[in-house]
Amino acid sequence: MASGEDDLIAKYFKPLVTAPGALGLTDDAAFYTPPEGYDLVLTTDVVVAGVHFPADEMGDQIACKALRVNLSDLAAKGARPAGFLMTLALTDDYAASESWMGGFASGLAGDIRFYSCPLLGGDTVRTHGPVSISIFAFGLVPHGTMVKRRGARPGDRIFVSGTIGDAAIGLKIATEDFRARGWRLVDEDRVGLLARYNRPQPRLDLADALRACASAAMDVSDGLVGDLGKLCAASGVSAQIEVTRVPIFDAVRRVVLPNDPSALELVLTGGDDYEILCAIPPTRVGLFREQADLAKVPVTEIGEIVEGEAPPQVIGPDGAALTFTRGSFSHFR
Amino acid sequence: MASGEDDLIAKYFKPLVTAPGALGLTDDAAFYTPPEGYDLVLTTDVVVAGVHFPADEMGDQIACKALRVNLSDLAAKGARPAGFLMTLALTDDYAASESWMGGFASGLAGDIRFYSCPLLGGDTVRTHGPVSISIFAFGLVPHGTMVKRRGARPGDRIFVSGTIGDAAIGLKIATEDFRARGWRLVDEDRVGLLARYNRPQPRLDLADALRACASAAMDVSDGLVGDLGKLCAASGVSAQIEVTRVPIFDAVRRVVLPNDPSALELVLTGGDDYEILCAIPPTRVGLFREQADLAKVPVTEIGEIVEGEAPPQVIGPDGAALTFTRGSFSHFR
Repeated sequence: MASGEDDLIAKYFKPLVTAPGALGLTDDAAFYTPPEGYDLVLTTDVVVAGVHFPADEMGDQIACKALRVNLSDLAAKGARPAGFLMTLALTDDYAASESWMGGFASGLAGDIRFYSCPLLGGDTVRTHGPVSISIFAFGLVPHGTMVKRRGARPGDRIFVSGTIGDAAIGLKIATEDFRARGWRLVDEDRVGLLARYNRPQPRLDLADALRACASAAMDVSDGLVGDLGKLCAASGVSAQIEVTRVPIFDAVRRVVLPNDPSALELVLTGGDDYEILCAIPPTRVGLFREQADLAKVPVTEIGEIVEGEAPPQVIGPDGAALTFTRGSFSHFR
Repeated sequence: MASGEDDLIAKYFKPLVTAPGALGLTDDAAFYTPPEGYDLVLTTDVVVAGVHFPADEMGDQIACKALRVNLSDLAAKGARPAGFLMTLALTDDYAASESWMGGFASGLAGDIRFYSCPLLGGDTVRTHGPVSISIFAFGLVPHGTMVKRRGARPGDRIFVSGTIGDAAIGLKIATEDFRARGWRLVDEDRVGLLARYNRPQPRLDLADALRACASAAMDVSDGLVGDLGKLCAASGVSAQIEVTRVPIFDAVRRVVLPNDPSALELVLTGGDDYEILCAIPPTRVGLFREQADLAKVPVTEIGEIVEGEAPPQVIGPDGAALTFTRGSFSHFR
């Protein structure tokens, strides 16, 4: 009575399951008892081979990325992860590859432990086309405290976590002859930037600070400029940020931008950062810096929310507003 | 700053959203406040063009099927639907087709209303390959009352809802020259059987009766015989069912099976029934029949749970056990 997908599940995914509600992945559904006084925060993202990752990418890297982009959403909403479900559409050759499937499962296992986010269920099916992975993750916030995109008000300071543009530069390193663009990166920096694309680090440590201080927040997945535009549109405000204040990875600032000024647009609009973009009311800026510091997450003030409905202005080093040929990443044009 | 997928979402999906927690689909995540004293029941299924539905299938039909297969899981667990999220991987031509996208959205809208299951969020991306739709649905049961696959005990009566095999016959009607097999179906029956494949009806009305009476339950999606085997395996028991007691659609019984005895295997192992298979302890059989009757869901006793770990026995009309070349549907063999 054994069947192929049941065998795949038993071999690769059942060992990852510890939550009693997952019922060993042998039921139609899982159960979860939510703690009293909390809201669930629900998010989902799908990644597709050839679109979100190269088709020959290692399984463990894909598993981690598929889960972490969801955890990054939870972090931006001030939530701590509580669990996830997953659908996998696999081609026969992926399903038959022990190294790919084994890597996928072990990558997932590592993140399940590291982020305390249990696998609760899923569905594994066959596809003729590119492999795709959908993850549905949910987290918890005290009732009524989810940090939304809407809520930013004129005067709020705009902060980002970490450095911006690393992943967009990393993607170019992976897919183009970056030396031809004059990017004189040493190996160590090249590897670091690639990792920023391949292994996003969801800023879950910043979740409490965001709930305590932010009037609005989101994660930067489609590019800083475009995502700031989305946050402003949701809040009915505009914004002004200064390029010279945007935190940029040291090697990018030193050996990429001076030799290739066009890379600045890539940094500001490229996406896949999975850093936090948030608006902090002036009275809470001190507390936010303090809490971010305690959480060991670097945060940088890059500008201010202003009145109006115009797209955010990005002020260049000479004080003039920059324009970009592309606002942010989109799948359909 | 508008981008393609944001436009798709604004045009087709935002109008479907009424739940405050969905935030008009303009945030990274949704929120949901679970009622006190309830458990969440979580399930997910993915459907892929060319595997689960023909690539040229109408959008509304696919939307309904993608959602309903999840609602059927909730029904089998005794849950009432509370909401869902969805990921869509679309090719350019599907995304550009107003009739397909419009049909998909209106099919979904109808089911959202009919089943009181709000859309809370999603992710829409591009794929080069077949279109796929993942739905993650969640429902509610009073704490600790989810009906599981495990729990069936020797002596329990085995029941199914509705009729079995309609969808498997319907699929053959859609994809093969059924007349060559001697199936002398009149148009009305042909249409009815096709609809059973294309538009499954999740048995949510049976959820309360299952919670009150069933020791174990699941929905029949991969074929009655195979799924009974899964229920028995999860419960550590075996079973015996009688073919003559299995409820079969009248026209199938009258004009398909007599002319094509091979269709019996199709009926019993074909899948896509989305009926409920459950085990009812003898002391609760009366109550179960009564509650199913009140819920207007036909249920039929087809056999009994027995001790042992052997695959379930299917007893034919002559009293001998039947064997099947295939147990149940599987994606990978």
